[in-house]
Amino acid sequence: MGTNQVNAPAGAGDEAEVRLRWWERRTEWPMVGLSVLFLGLYAWMVLDTGLTPVSRQRIDAVMWALWAAFAVDYLVRLGLARRRLRFVVHNAFDLLVLLLPLLRQLRVLRLVVVLLTLNRRVQARVRGQVVLYVSGAVVLLGLSAALAVLEVERTAPDAKITGFGDALWWTMTTVTTVGYGDYYPVTGQGKLIAAGLMIAGIALLGVVTGSIASWFVDRFGGLEQSVSASADATRRLDAESDQLRAEIVVLREEITALRTELSSREGS
Amino acid sequence: MGTNQVNAPAGAGDEAEVRLRWWERRTEWPMVGLSVLFLGLYAWMVLDTGLTPVSRQRIDAVMWALWAAFAVDYLVRLGLARRRLRFVVHNAFDLLVLLLPLLRQLRVLRLVVVLLTLNRRVQARVRGQVVLYVSGAVVLLGLSAALAVLEVERTAPDAKITGFGDALWWTMTTVTTVGYGDYYPVTGQGKLIAAGLMIAGIALLGVVTGSIASWFVDRFGGLEQSVSASADATRRLDAESDQLRAEIVVLREEITALRTELSSREGS
Amino acid sequence: MGTNQVNAPAGAGDEAEVRLRWWERRTEWPMVGLSVLFLGLYAWMVLDTGLTPVSRQRIDAVMWALWAAFAVDYLVRLGLARRRLRFVVHNAFDLLVLLLPLLRQLRVLRLVVVLLTLNRRVQARVRGQVVLYVSGAVVLLGLSAALAVLEVERTAPDAKITGFGDALWWTMTTVTTVGYGDYYPVTGQGKLIAAGLMIAGIALLGVVTGSIASWFVDRFGGLEQSVSASADATRRLDAESDQLRAEIVVLREEITALRTELSSREGS
Amino acid sequence: MGTNQVNAPAGAGDEAEVRLRWWERRTEWPMVGLSVLFLGLYAWMVLDTGLTPVSRQRIDAVMWALWAAFAVDYLVRLGLARRRLRFVVHNAFDLLVLLLPLLRQLRVLRLVVVLLTLNRRVQARVRGQVVLYVSGAVVLLGLSAALAVLEVERTAPDAKITGFGDALWWTMTTVTTVGYGDYYPVTGQGKLIAAGLMIAGIALLGVVTGSIASWFVDRFGGLEQSVSASADATRRLDAESDQLRAEIVVLREEITALRTELSSREGS
Repeated sequence: MGTNQVNAPAGAGDEAEVRLRWWERRTEWPMVGLSVLFLGLYAWMVLDTGLTPVSRQRIDAVMWALWAAFAVDYLVRLGLARRRLRFVVHNAFDLLVLLLPLLRQLRVLRLVVVLLTLNRRVQARVRGQVVLYVSGAVVLLGLSAALAVLEVERTAPDAKITGFGDALWWTMTTVTTVGYGDYYPVTGQGKLIAAGLMIAGIALLGVVTGSIASWFVDRFGGLEQSVSASADATRRLDAESDQLRAEIVVLREEITALRTELSSREGS
Repeated sequence: MGTNQVNAPAGAGDEAEVRLRWWERRTEWPMVGLSVLFLGLYAWMVLDTGLTPVSRQRIDAVMWALWAAFAVDYLVRLGLARRRLRFVVHNAFDLLVLLLPLLRQLRVLRLVVVLLTLNRRVQARVRGQVVLYVSGAVVLLGLSAALAVLEVERTAPDAKITGFGDALWWTMTTVTTVGYGDYYPVTGQGKLIAAGLMIAGIALLGVVTGSIASWFVDRFGGLEQSVSASADATRRLDAESDQLRAEIVVLREEITALRTELSSREGS
Repeated sequence: MGTNQVNAPAGAGDEAEVRLRWWERRTEWPMVGLSVLFLGLYAWMVLDTGLTPVSRQRIDAVMWALWAAFAVDYLVRLGLARRRLRFVVHNAFDLLVLLLPLLRQLRVLRLVVVLLTLNRRVQARVRGQVVLYVSGAVVLLGLSAALAVLEVERTAPDAKITGFGDALWWTMTTVTTVGYGDYYPVTGQGKLIAAGLMIAGIALLGVVTGSIASWFVDRFGGLEQSVSASADATRRLDAESDQLRAEIVVLREEITALRTELSSREGS
Repeated sequence: MGTNQVNAPAGAGDEAEVRLRWWERRTEWPMVGLSVLFLGLYAWMVLDTGLTPVSRQRIDAVMWALWAAFAVDYLVRLGLARRRLRFVVHNAFDLLVLLLPLLRQLRVLRLVVVLLTLNRRVQARVRGQVVLYVSGAVVLLGLSAALAVLEVERTAPDAKITGFGDALWWTMTTVTTVGYGDYYPVTGQGKLIAAGLMIAGIALLGVVTGSIASWFVDRFGGLEQSVSASADATRRLDAESDQLRAEIVVLREEITALRTELSSREGS
């Protein structure tokens, strides 16, 4: 998961897709804005238990409007893409996320698209940036998971997670794979969200460990010495090759001198 | 575990085993089909609690027939192998899986052979393929484990895992090493299956982390720069060596010219 | 976290900051001493439940004095820094730790500064040193977390962690991500400390795994062979280049001899 | 832990310690035998609850005799060592294990010495061997931990682990860091053993992940291509250098021919 996300930003790999990339560059920040708005509204709906049914309906309407905007963006991008099948395959996650919100509680997955959208922009150049980016993604994912689990769990009988604090704490114990078991989801939907979070936790572990491992390989590897030795030897060879050329030049000059002498003798 | 599975497909390493490999290529897909059928029947038996004893017996008979097919395949392969001892050692797992089903609940291990069989075909060429393959294997293993645990646990007194949903959820918390402890096996056989799943979880963590680590090493390694520098120096040397040769050619021509001149002078 | 800590000791990266580094070198060990004293006093206050209110107040006063010393050190360093904004950004953690103790229980975070201070000195040269250093850091962090959790938890109703032994055991199960769930924090502050510990656990896992992975890469990598082969080829080339030069020298001598002969003939 | 164990077999690193290494080679297998005997006796004492006090005393006496043999071996090795301080530091673990058994339940740590002893022999040459070796070590350690925990826990009030099956299951959930929390130690000694097991679990995770990561780096690294390209270029250069030499040889022959001609002309 981690590698693909960072490696190949969805649909941006193809050189010929000029129009598509132009559109994606233009709509990048607006889409991020809409996504953040979506997350904010969702958090409001889940956390503000004192909302009147009318306000709730209004928020819901705005969220559906946002969903429609996402759908339009997807369709435009599909329309601009030259190789449509390829686009659908590479952006399978976008399509999934677009269809999932029809199931009410899963629409929180919309938030993952924020990450993918941001990802198009992010051009990680140093190791620390990737770690930062993934950490940010995990924080955002954790927040979304906490909200979603809270929404589906709090009304369940025998629920353990009934407040936002509980939900955050549960998220933390899950994503780090500690899993005390003092809080855990009891509904099917809650368990589905938990499963996603566990996978995110494994990915997080992988990124942290991977970045540290690569740092170790760079810094303490005997390989490093071996490669350096090879590079040094090549550099030395390079210098010697220059000397060789210089000596051949001298050789040539002497032959020329020899020839001139012969000619002059002949002329005499 | 992960490395061996991917590295050295059982029994396919030896160059001389032409007949064996011919048979394995021919029976590859049929065996996968039979294995999938085996899994399907097993799932049916476990999940459909309304089965009449007669139907149950019939399914059982088919499963035994499938087992016999696996046994015949093993014996044929053993017969075709030149170096039999080597074959038995390299395919120890196949033999184990063949003998285990005699213990009723352990026959689900047959499913692991599906993975090994598929593995013979898989020639992972890029990092993502290995991750995909291992993920697929873990999903298949998890599904099998959930079925097997459900079968052995649901009739136990004080059992926690009594439905397929419980079993799947428990599988997820185990394979990711989260381990809330809301569900866990209480029977000996259940615990044996759980142990296998935990080991699979460690392998999964290893593959995810390992693939991310190698991506980091490739992308951000100072090593990369060092190796590139060495390669550049070598390329430069290469170019200079061409120049050297050109100059030696010139040198030779001049010597030839010198000689011709000498000859002509002699002739005069 | 791990990479940054080891990679870039806070504020020491800039070449121009001579005065700042001079101060940091001079105050290094005194600051470590004060930090250790701080930890000792904190441990005393938490563990000695028989302290009279007066003694408690006195210890508290000393701890505030120590805090003031840390604050003065920070301000002096800020004053000495040329690029102040850069200093504040690079030492954001120092500032955070300085402000946090105002909230009583979080002042234990002061201990993390001990690690950062020590880090300025540590120049890890071999892999084992980094592992040792991080292990030491995790032990110190674990000890601090145990003390802090004990302080905030033991007075809570329904608290599980009521003794130092419980706290240490809980720390161990958390930092290794085992998480039995026999002990866990129930207060908000305790959960905050736990979250920090879980992150430390992930970092620990990362460092251990990373160092082992790099050892594997060094020792068993096909890369190693490839690099060695390249280095060998370069060495062989090097030797041949010497031979080439020797032959060119011989060539030159013969040309000189040829010339001498010509001259002598001319003279005759 | 993992890296040190495999990297630097205790006391075998120094070239001058000829006598010490001679002794260690000679006593290697006898010591392993005694260690295995020690483990067997310990297992017997813990698992056979029907032992009469007299038999128990006898087994205890044999175990003390074994302990004495280990002590003698340590003292002989200390006596043979040239640099004694260095020996004590490098074999700190041996000394610790020697002193620990004085505390009854901790003598199971003797088993760790078996691993270290075996380690002196093992010269891991391929990745799989290290994984195998560490897996074996973890299995042995897990078995020892299960026995030790069972001994200290089963007489405790409110104990969860009261049978060998429970102990094995608990070991498995701990070493894989799953930690359901259905079984956990409740005594101080049990928790100490558990802590050791958790650390072993982290090391296991590290070795599995590390070996997979290094496999990935070898197999899919862009680095590999880069190094191969460099090696190819060097090989090509090598070939060209041979050609150069051949051409210089031709050049030399022609000069010689030229000279001979001049001489012959002079002679005429």
